[in-house]
Amino acid sequence: MQRVLASQADDFPAWYQDVVAKAELAENGPVRGTMVIRPTAYAIWERMQSAMDQRIKDAGVDNAYFPMLIPESYLRREAEHVEGFSPELAVVTAGGGKTLDEPLVVRPTSETVFGQYMAKWTQSYRDLPLLLNQWANVVRWEMRPRLFLRTSEFLWQEGHTAHADQADARAFARRILHEVYEDFMTEVLAIPTVVGLKTGRERFAGATHTYCLESCMRDGKALQMGTSHELGQNFARAFDMNFLDAEGQRQLAWTTSWGTSTRMIGGLIMVHGDDRGLRLPPGLAPVQVQVVVVKATDEVLAAARRLVDDLRAAGVRCKLDDRTDVAFGRRAVDAELRGIPVRLEVGPRDLAQDQVTLVRRIPGTKEQRPLGTVVAAVTEALAEDQTLLFTEAKTLLDSRTVDVDSFADVPAAAAQGWARVPWDLVGPDGEKELNGQALTVRCLQRADGSVPESESEDGLVAVVARAY
Amino acid sequence: MQRVLASQADDFPAWYQDVVAKAELAENGPVRGTMVIRPTAYAIWERMQSAMDQRIKDAGVDNAYFPMLIPESYLRREAEHVEGFSPELAVVTAGGGKTLDEPLVVRPTSETVFGQYMAKWTQSYRDLPLLLNQWANVVRWEMRPRLFLRTSEFLWQEGHTAHADQADARAFARRILHEVYEDFMTEVLAIPTVVGLKTGRERFAGATHTYCLESCMRDGKALQMGTSHELGQNFARAFDMNFLDAEGQRQLAWTTSWGTSTRMIGGLIMVHGDDRGLRLPPGLAPVQVQVVVVKATDEVLAAARRLVDDLRAAGVRCKLDDRTDVAFGRRAVDAELRGIPVRLEVGPRDLAQDQVTLVRRIPGTKEQRPLGTVVAAVTEALAEDQTLLFTEAKTLLDSRTVDVDSFADVPAAAAQGWARVPWDLVGPDGEKELNGQALTVRCLQRADGSVPESESEDGLVAVVARAY
Repeated sequence: MQRVLASQADDFPAWYQDVVAKAELAENGPVRGTMVIRPTAYAIWERMQSAMDQRIKDAGVDNAYFPMLIPESYLRREAEHVEGFSPELAVVTAGGGKTLDEPLVVRPTSETVFGQYMAKWTQSYRDLPLLLNQWANVVRWEMRPRLFLRTSEFLWQEGHTAHADQADARAFARRILHEVYEDFMTEVLAIPTVVGLKTGRERFAGATHTYCLESCMRDGKALQMGTSHELGQNFARAFDMNFLDAEGQRQLAWTTSWGTSTRMIGGLIMVHGDDRGLRLPPGLAPVQVQVVVVKATDEVLAAARRLVDDLRAAGVRCKLDDRTDVAFGRRAVDAELRGIPVRLEVGPRDLAQDQVTLVRRIPGTKEQRPLGTVVAAVTEALAEDQTLLFTEAKTLLDSRTVDVDSFADVPAAAAQGWARVPWDLVGPDGEKELNGQALTVRCLQRADGSVPESESEDGLVAVVARAY
Repeated sequence: MQRVLASQADDFPAWYQDVVAKAELAENGPVRGTMVIRPTAYAIWERMQSAMDQRIKDAGVDNAYFPMLIPESYLRREAEHVEGFSPELAVVTAGGGKTLDEPLVVRPTSETVFGQYMAKWTQSYRDLPLLLNQWANVVRWEMRPRLFLRTSEFLWQEGHTAHADQADARAFARRILHEVYEDFMTEVLAIPTVVGLKTGRERFAGATHTYCLESCMRDGKALQMGTSHELGQNFARAFDMNFLDAEGQRQLAWTTSWGTSTRMIGGLIMVHGDDRGLRLPPGLAPVQVQVVVVKATDEVLAAARRLVDDLRAAGVRCKLDDRTDVAFGRRAVDAELRGIPVRLEVGPRDLAQDQVTLVRRIPGTKEQRPLGTVVAAVTEALAEDQTLLFTEAKTLLDSRTVDVDSFADVPAAAAQGWARVPWDLVGPDGEKELNGQALTVRCLQRADGSVPESESEDGLVAVVARAY
């Protein structure tokens, strides 16, 4: 078979570019760093949105929509925040044919504008917690863009919540981290995550704590898949978000924010993809089964259509491929490229024996199946393959993870994979030194892998890796 | 009962502002003309999106996402387009801390950037039709903003399609008009529309034909609810969108675009709302039934919860209101304001007689119902009330519509409602004269109410009205 993609082993970045281009996932936009998300990838994003949105709503959060253009002065109200985001801002200086009195920034994130309005809506302790989320585009000027992973404009959800006390804010930021993000990534994306606390150096601009989920790509590099921040009272103070407590005392609120983006599509490609293209988790795949007409005889077409109907009736997302003017081999390569979990090939020879060929993209198996049992076989395969993908990815992560007990050994270990080293041996100075070697502390964990509440807890482990 | 809102009869604009504010639908954003869409309204938008998106997909269209920042030069490639949109543009002149070489416009609509990429993807007649849509935000600088109706940023869907010939493009623009938009507005929003062709003066900048749907608000003014454009070969020419036809000849494609936006929420408010607030069509309402605990005894709470479970099991979107720390009257007023179609009041007195009180927002009725029959009664009421709203709105439209047979009579008729007058008697000069009196030709129709293919057809009728 002719090679369609660069091989992962030879050149992982080239392989990534090839998959994105040849599976028609995305293209560079006209403005440097922007991206056109093509239908194949957008359908994946829609399914991500729907599963994530359900979890967000189940956590009691309401969706809303806030303006994209934010007065520059809003950002300046939180000193660290404006310092962190200034280099990445796109600025609108003219509107309606006139130069604006005050420049407007295109939101790089929306803590400030949510802060302004949540302050209005938070009058009494009865108004708390106030739990909001929005699905939106954001712009962060990107110097080293890469499709899905780092783009100047991306799509995301950003949650913003206000709470009566620190404990409630912390519990909520951690609830989103585990019950929404970790659960979504595990169950839907079939991607294992290392969940931890960012160091001060890697913390979100304006946060007191940044929790994160990191995943291991097939080249051993880490990708940050999502973050959840405790913002302390920083934004509440900046926007005067206060409320009357049950005793009639005025108090400042405590806020959180949290986000996941189209970057997850990049993670999906790099965790599950192989040399033949994408491999989509069946639970996520917009098309779970492609029913392929090998040769368009009346019998074959009728059988293929019946199969599609039966699969749909069984709740399977199914597509008929009857483009027999395109070579069969080309269509098979294309389905593999796009990572469709199951292909059912219906041809006259198989059909004469009352069977079809079931090809599973994830384990890469191919077998004849009697027509009467194929729907059950497909349903079973889809469930199995979801688990299979997660297990493979977990095995990869584990095999790449190395425990290290001296700072000197970190660079070598982290050049190959993920080094776990006592945080005591690294510290802020060691972290800076690692950064000089293109290594970062992805997160801090407790020795048992759980998420610490503070950087200063004893016995923490730093996870060090190269990262996207 | 204390009046919560200005009355429609006294001051329709004040009533509108009151509903938007007091039902907590939206607020003005920090930048003039922008809008914060609050959860109550955003939930309505989500249900609109979902019903509209399904219809768009059923028409064979795929969703995608294109960049928001467009090089200014793209707009200039289509002369009428740039002329039409220039006064409304927001312009980004700095990014990443530097002044940009070429200013970028925040998309006011995306014909140009879709054009650029669709030209790449349209190589052969086999690639056509190419049917795309995106859900996105757009920015058009607004001098006279009004929440939902005219905002500097709004949310919408914009479809962009390319076809091999004019007939196919026309048929598709009209298919979207009727099968997607008209059907959605009739069936989901319960809003009747007058569907027609815009005059040259009102046509979209860059289109050859603009089809539109116009609805009659309760004050007799018209609101444009959606448009579908034939763009001829204007954008195909500007972006060199050509393809090889079946005979191997290079041809220019024919394109369409079509959009509906958060403005429909404004229409929904002004078509169905009354002096007590919103009235939501049951098919659209995020909450169809509010089960109200009148007094929180154990029996009442148990009965209310059982009712919620039974209604949900019957497929009804249902919410429990057990906030008995808030006065019952206040909660009732609030539910009416928000337009929840059915309220079930569960109190100890009713319950002792094995009944509950069923309050229907749309006809404004209130009756006792035996517990055993209440789920069936609710289901029936929801279906009836959807029809009732449409019928009321249709009656309003019909009662406001007047046939006029001289140009001189148009202003008086259109000051009260909608004047239908032979287009021959108006013409472009008459149209300009009417504009001077704050009247516009909303659309042209054939005498039988069907949609003409061209302004120059004989016997057309102009629909003249005041408009939002």
